[in-house]
Amino acid sequence: MKVNYLIVGAGLTGLTFANLLAQNENNKILIIEKRHHIGGNAYDSYNANHILIHNYGPHIFHTNNQKIWDYLSQFTEWYDYQHRVLSFVDGQFIPMPITLETINQLYNTNLSQFEMVDFIESQKERVAPIKSSEDVALNNAGRDIYEKFFMNYTTKQWGVPPSELDPAVISRIPFRYNRDTRYFTDRYQGIPKAGYSKMCEQMIDRPNIKVMLNTDYKEVNDAIVYDKMIYTGPIDYYYDNQFGKLKYRSVRFEMEDHDCESFQNAAVVNYPNDYDYTRITEYKKITGQQSRKTTIMKEFPCDGDDPFYPFPTKEWQELYLLYKEKADAEKNVIFAGRLAEYRYYNMDVVVDQAMRFFEKLSVD
Amino acid sequence: MKVNYLIVGAGLTGLTFANLLAQNENNKILIIEKRHHIGGNAYDSYNANHILIHNYGPHIFHTNNQKIWDYLSQFTEWYDYQHRVLSFVDGQFIPMPITLETINQLYNTNLSQFEMVDFIESQKERVAPIKSSEDVALNNAGRDIYEKFFMNYTTKQWGVPPSELDPAVISRIPFRYNRDTRYFTDRYQGIPKAGYSKMCEQMIDRPNIKVMLNTDYKEVNDAIVYDKMIYTGPIDYYYDNQFGKLKYRSVRFEMEDHDCESFQNAAVVNYPNDYDYTRITEYKKITGQQSRKTTIMKEFPCDGDDPFYPFPTKEWQELYLLYKEKADAEKNVIFAGRLAEYRYYNMDVVVDQAMRFFEKLSVD
Repeated sequence: MKVNYLIVGAGLTGLTFANLLAQNENNKILIIEKRHHIGGNAYDSYNANHILIHNYGPHIFHTNNQKIWDYLSQFTEWYDYQHRVLSFVDGQFIPMPITLETINQLYNTNLSQFEMVDFIESQKERVAPIKSSEDVALNNAGRDIYEKFFMNYTTKQWGVPPSELDPAVISRIPFRYNRDTRYFTDRYQGIPKAGYSKMCEQMIDRPNIKVMLNTDYKEVNDAIVYDKMIYTGPIDYYYDNQFGKLKYRSVRFEMEDHDCESFQNAAVVNYPNDYDYTRITEYKKITGQQSRKTTIMKEFPCDGDDPFYPFPTKEWQELYLLYKEKADAEKNVIFAGRLAEYRYYNMDVVVDQAMRFFEKLSVD
Repeated sequence: MKVNYLIVGAGLTGLTFANLLAQNENNKILIIEKRHHIGGNAYDSYNANHILIHNYGPHIFHTNNQKIWDYLSQFTEWYDYQHRVLSFVDGQFIPMPITLETINQLYNTNLSQFEMVDFIESQKERVAPIKSSEDVALNNAGRDIYEKFFMNYTTKQWGVPPSELDPAVISRIPFRYNRDTRYFTDRYQGIPKAGYSKMCEQMIDRPNIKVMLNTDYKEVNDAIVYDKMIYTGPIDYYYDNQFGKLKYRSVRFEMEDHDCESFQNAAVVNYPNDYDYTRITEYKKITGQQSRKTTIMKEFPCDGDDPFYPFPTKEWQELYLLYKEKADAEKNVIFAGRLAEYRYYNMDVVVDQAMRFFEKLSVD
């Protein structure tokens, strides 16, 4: 089988490439996807209660880049959603990230913006040299805030306490010295009105894009002749793990249907110190869907085969660089996206990168 | 690319074959589908109001065959739905098919079951010889019932009045001499709880089934080596229309979102005599979905490229037989399903047929 572009992986990276390349009607494009669906981890679907859920955890689209927003707006209308997160601390539901509201609610104070600056300064514990993520947090926020919001959450998230984690994992703690309790402050925020999966379908709704699902590209690679491959899978897998497997943190999801209109007061509630899950997402609050029932998702970070979070530490970055060196030398393969670049990227970033790669391709 | 089975078309026929063949782990199966989704005309999806709709018109699963019901129950739970249809006649909404209720409501009578038999007999108009569908209807039901329920509906449906239609189109008019107003009386009736698309996904959730979407099989046929092809597409297309194109009736769908809980009193209301559409389907009433909004679908039968209804008349059957003769002589291709057999089949029938073909294959 002959194609111009073989795209491995139907996540947002691969789909953006496919969409852009397909604008040239002479390009024949084949996407190969291991899962039974397109959309990567942004995939959403409806459950038996007819509630739209994000199968791989909550995805909130946010960007400051108008070009990205306009580009994706070709494929979807948006539900103008502003994400807010509460953190369950000391028996209270307190806004995250840490804002003036958080501090005043936590300590039952009535600080002004200016007083909060002084307060945070007074909390900071000078630790030098900084050897761990715990040191970063103590330097940035002091022990109380660190212990209440970050210590246990990070331990759940990575399976290791911050004191044993590279400073890169908690690289800084963001404070907001005002009452803006939104999780993101990007200019553009929203959820595709009919869901991410529908948006993704629209991206590849062109006759010169074929999609092969349920297929590991290595199973069919030999039978396909291509001019260029765009590889968005795990970079170590491409090279048969020859330098060893890269480490990822994975997540186990538990869904619960509840026979009530509303389960919690925010789309996402973090549980840093209680239970074994890190957070609970109530999807109706993200999508704006109306229903007499609701579905929630608990997230249990774990080790596992499904790669979610690349380890942002020196050790694994160094291993990645061995692979990257080989990848850079490839003439007919572009490595792009979270798994191929072993880096946690937001959705807008992968779309942006694919657009840049595409522009470069067009110049070459 | 080498596979054991190349399946053309991811409708219920193709998916049943794929599922059964995949039980043998040594079988490599590739499904090629022209559309961007599996499920054929049974495909359902959610719209921007989060209402589940059947994209190609209402699909009610019903069968008397326990084997089929049990087989599909591996892939879905069921919403135990009993289909009911009303027909808008003389300004009233009257149950279809024609039951004792229909007659009593239409004529404002209070006939017993026994009196209805006499009444229908008295209505019948003897026409001989029977040359058209109109003749069939007059013989079966008399002029009034024919004109109110069937004449205009059939004209909309086929674009030709029954007086010009082969007797095969209205081959009989079913009467029910009791108060059972259900549309179907099959022992098993239901709707897949999470939708047909999800059920279809489950059918092919096996590692030895690959699916290629957005792909006309002729585009890739040459690049694939297979032991056997299962062809479920239009039989004339397989043979490049060499004897001419077979005629199909198509349907144009119009969707409307309404900001109310309920739009009409039944899942389907037929409009034999009014408007240009044949019927309105309100999907929530089929799926049992709860929502403050509702979505309806109007159906406008039309000529068109999307093949829905094979013409059940002698002329087209004869053309089909020319193709069938060639098809029967093929050694490595099985022709199965509505399009390949040029015949209107219900869902349970195509599943049953695929199961029988499969058993035959296994014996060969």
